[in-house]
Amino acid sequence: MSDGEFKCVTIVGVGLLGGSLGLAMKARTPSVRIFGVGRRRQALDEALACGAIDEAYLDAAEPAGRSDLVVLATPVCAFEQHLRTIAPVLADGAVVTDVGSTKDFVVRTAGGTLGKAGAFVGSHPMAGSEKKGVAHASADLFEGATCVITPIPETPPTTAERVENLWRSLGMRTLRMDPRDHDRAVAAVSHLPHAVSAVLATLPEQRYMEVAATGFRDMTRLAAGDPEMWRDILVTNREAVLEALDAMAGSLSRLRDLLDRSDAAGIERMLAEARDRREQSNAGQ
Amino acid sequence: MSDGEFKCVTIVGVGLLGGSLGLAMKARTPSVRIFGVGRRRQALDEALACGAIDEAYLDAAEPAGRSDLVVLATPVCAFEQHLRTIAPVLADGAVVTDVGSTKDFVVRTAGGTLGKAGAFVGSHPMAGSEKKGVAHASADLFEGATCVITPIPETPPTTAERVENLWRSLGMRTLRMDPRDHDRAVAAVSHLPHAVSAVLATLPEQRYMEVAATGFRDMTRLAAGDPEMWRDILVTNREAVLEALDAMAGSLSRLRDLLDRSDAAGIERMLAEARDRREQSNAGQ
Repeated sequence: MSDGEFKCVTIVGVGLLGGSLGLAMKARTPSVRIFGVGRRRQALDEALACGAIDEAYLDAAEPAGRSDLVVLATPVCAFEQHLRTIAPVLADGAVVTDVGSTKDFVVRTAGGTLGKAGAFVGSHPMAGSEKKGVAHASADLFEGATCVITPIPETPPTTAERVENLWRSLGMRTLRMDPRDHDRAVAAVSHLPHAVSAVLATLPEQRYMEVAATGFRDMTRLAAGDPEMWRDILVTNREAVLEALDAMAGSLSRLRDLLDRSDAAGIERMLAEARDRREQSNAGQ
Repeated sequence: MSDGEFKCVTIVGVGLLGGSLGLAMKARTPSVRIFGVGRRRQALDEALACGAIDEAYLDAAEPAGRSDLVVLATPVCAFEQHLRTIAPVLADGAVVTDVGSTKDFVVRTAGGTLGKAGAFVGSHPMAGSEKKGVAHASADLFEGATCVITPIPETPPTTAERVENLWRSLGMRTLRMDPRDHDRAVAAVSHLPHAVSAVLATLPEQRYMEVAATGFRDMTRLAAGDPEMWRDILVTNREAVLEALDAMAGSLSRLRDLLDRSDAAGIERMLAEARDRREQSNAGQ
């Protein structure tokens, strides 16, 4: 698979991720044509101005019909509508992927709407920030980060390879997972921490914020994320997040029991296990 | 109250906070004599070598009898033993304070053991890091941070002022709170976040750590803290931490209910409230 195999690319959603994808692909292969699709004229104009896209559209149908790659980069709950728009116009051999944070819902939605078997493979490039909008897009957003690809048994190997090579060409480390396994993993390491961060931010009485320090600031940083995007992530990963919330509630309840009976040794063991688990993981590095 | 009013200071516990206090006081008033008390000869030697203390002792009795200020800087659960050692030797007019993270337990322990009414006022300098030991001590650790002073009705105003002026002279912003109110505040903004961070670190299956990114790393940073120190903090702030754990469990359960019935609007409202609360607070700055 050669670099720059995609000549015409439609990116639906020109926010932080969609805009960065356009910039990164053009930085790598200046001849690629990027068609940006958005709801708001202003975001499209910004994307044109910064060079993230070459042409701007309010609807995906026209550019998608002329593209060999279509990437969905809107909030996940809007994917179905765009897939329905794209389905009838998609060229033979064209590939569709996405940048959504949940995969089972997305892969099932694509299977149900796209019609063309094997045109879709899910992607989750794990890059981004609390910042949103094309104004914060950058050509090296993906560099060095991990991208999970979620082919299913029905996915032709070449489709998965083409999408995998795309992310690799942008400097990402790729990793293949089953969509449901991906969802359980990100529920534990990303969606639950986000939910917990939001809950922590709402708990202290306002007058107690005077004594809040770096620990509180770090633990509520994720809560600054976009409520609409995170609503979609939690709702489309409902089962795995419910499981993760139950595991969290169970562990907090065990800690509560230890503290209730002043079991200092038990508390210390729990804290030591947490420290060791963190140090063994990548997170400790 | 003039600068450097304390001529001879005993610091019990020469770790990060005790060592930094010695360095900071000597940087401000080179003539002050700092007596360091520790259990381990090696830590005392390090403290002597870096200039955090002038003399080293394995027991507090002798230096405390010659001091006009005694500061407890060991883990909180060791305070009672040191207070019993200090009580019979403490000079008239000498002041005792501490750097512990919980205050009601400490203030009650001091009241019950020290005998001399009004010699003690609790302090909680909110400075530090996950690093421990005098090797990480620094003269400017306290600069710009907040210190809570917790006088009670029995505390003579001059005792509270002398301790408040000490922390101010080291560049801290001071704040007075009732000990129990302090404990509820730090339970919400510090102790609960720590407990939650530890629980989050233990939840993901090991194989899922491959997809852990900056969000997970930030949310489990506190879990790297010293288990022994945090055990003491949780145990000596039991009531307030239990209250905070119950509030957390209640909020997580409300989020679980919203997600269980796929109430997207309700979830978005909860996430938006969290973001707004964070932005309104100092934490958002």
